Amino acid sequence: MSDSYSGGPQIVKTAAEMNTWALEALRAGKSIGFVPTMGALHAGHGALIERAVNENAAVVVSIFVNPTQFGPNEDFTRYPRPFEADVKLCADAGVDCIYAPEPAEMYAKDARTWVEVGGLADHLCGLSRPGHFRGVATVVTKLLSIVRPTRAYFGKKDAQQLRIIEVLTRDLNLGVEIVPCEIVREADGLAMSSRNRYLSADERREALVLHRTLKYFEERVASGERDAMKLLGELAEKIEAAQGAEIDYVAIVDAITLEDIAEIKGEVLAALAVKFGTTRLIDNIRVMVG
Amino acid sequence: MSDSYSGGPQIVKTAAEMNTWALEALRAGKSIGFVPTMGALHAGHGALIERAVNENAAVVVSIFVNPTQFGPNEDFTRYPRPFEADVKLCADAGVDCIYAPEPAEMYAKDARTWVEVGGLADHLCGLSRPGHFRGVATVVTKLLSIVRPTRAYFGKKDAQQLRIIEVLTRDLNLGVEIVPCEIVREADGLAMSSRNRYLSADERREALVLHRTLKYFEERVASGERDAMKLLGELAEKIEAAQGAEIDYVAIVDAITLEDIAEIKGEVLAALAVKFGTTRLIDNIRVMVG
Repeated sequence: MSDSYSGGPQIVKTAAEMNTWALEALRAGKSIGFVPTMGALHAGHGALIERAVNENAAVVVSIFVNPTQFGPNEDFTRYPRPFEADVKLCADAGVDCIYAPEPAEMYAKDARTWVEVGGLADHLCGLSRPGHFRGVATVVTKLLSIVRPTRAYFGKKDAQQLRIIEVLTRDLNLGVEIVPCEIVREADGLAMSSRNRYLSADERREALVLHRTLKYFEERVASGERDAMKLLGELAEKIEAAQGAEIDYVAIVDAITLEDIAEIKGEVLAALAVKFGTTRLIDNIRVMVG
Repeated sequence: MSDSYSGGPQIVKTAAEMNTWALEALRAGKSIGFVPTMGALHAGHGALIERAVNENAAVVVSIFVNPTQFGPNEDFTRYPRPFEADVKLCADAGVDCIYAPEPAEMYAKDARTWVEVGGLADHLCGLSRPGHFRGVATVVTKLLSIVRPTRAYFGKKDAQQLRIIEVLTRDLNLGVEIVPCEIVREADGLAMSSRNRYLSADERREALVLHRTLKYFEERVASGERDAMKLLGELAEKIEAAQGAEIDYVAIVDAITLEDIAEIKGEVLAALAVKFGTTRLIDNIRVMVG
């Protein structure tokens, strides 16, 4: 079952059809660039897609709001699904194929196989979202198996997700090059997110504290501060000063292991998760020291 | 790094090289048949290979004694590794490529990704071999990703392994047809196993009790017995009569869920694991009722 939009991307609904499409592209000697998304596409996704189009002969975007990575009290049902607008963005960007399966197509009723990336999920978002990264790791393994891309593009905003995907791709020999892409921000610094649309005008303004705090971290490190505990206190204080900001975590971790560090040294990730009302936002910055 | 034996299969040591070989075969429009093994090949493997050769344009056999599926007190180090004899068997059977990676090539030092098939491991061999099926599921996922076969061939002797692989292949969308193959037996009924060579002459003779017991089960069901508890008692009694036989388990389970059943009905698996000295043997039979 596939629809063809005139001049636009082919829309594919089943794994079998997607796999056939990908095998044909491979047999034609084409490289495949793949951008897995949950839809509600914004300029951040746009940057991933643009890069995929530039670097590959064929480009697939998946649009799938993955139920297994949402907790029972999270926003699975209200997660935005503006499918027609997403298709238009893909068409304008030169995407060849959109893979948009239904949950029942993606998961058999008695599906029971999980991909677990040990250790890396026991930090940051993994603590407040139990099972989230198991769901992410599993669906990404499935998508990479179905699409068999040459390269897959992921944003650095989801830093922990990116790290987990890098490791599972290596460990399971998925044969895909994972391409990390820079965070795309609004003009005022807010990181692009499909969840930004949940924010009220007040929350939207206060949410700028995330980027401001990360820039502050970068400056403090540039000016020689190396004490992670001290910096953590300063970052938390800055965020708490914003009205309605409820900290989920403020963390300074090794960018490879995601483990807490005491001293700023090597490749370091400062990561934040903060709730404004019912909306949880994340952001991060990476610094290299020494 | 690859060796070419004149007229024999190409021998490949790295995932990258194996993947390139497979992609070339795919691009040439060839179907790939795959027989994953731990080496020490016997007529059971021979039957899998023969079928793969008959049904596919190209055939890959992997030989890899997978450390992650052995427990700390199991026979990983003493597991037989008669590589030259294995190569000869493959060459004679018309295998195109042998994939024989070293453990360090297969697992990065900090490898931490596991494929877990929920539920199916909590029965039969999973109980006495904790972690075994996690190791099997993970290495099979890796091998199927590297080799990207059209079809993969597994023996029914490892009934639980086969069931787990069928489910993970479906759940992770690996796009491979899993082909179950009949158990191959010695003339006197002993199921072929690489571990049979551990048996002393006395143990070898007593080990016939496994097949005898399974045939007895089949006859009892054919003559109308439907009480699984009663049959379990009878099977255990038969095995205990053999000298030196130490039962690990005697089980009568649903062939799909591997859960214990009370009544013989539908597709039923009778499975045995019995130790003779330090050698643990398994065997099973499947009956269809109603």
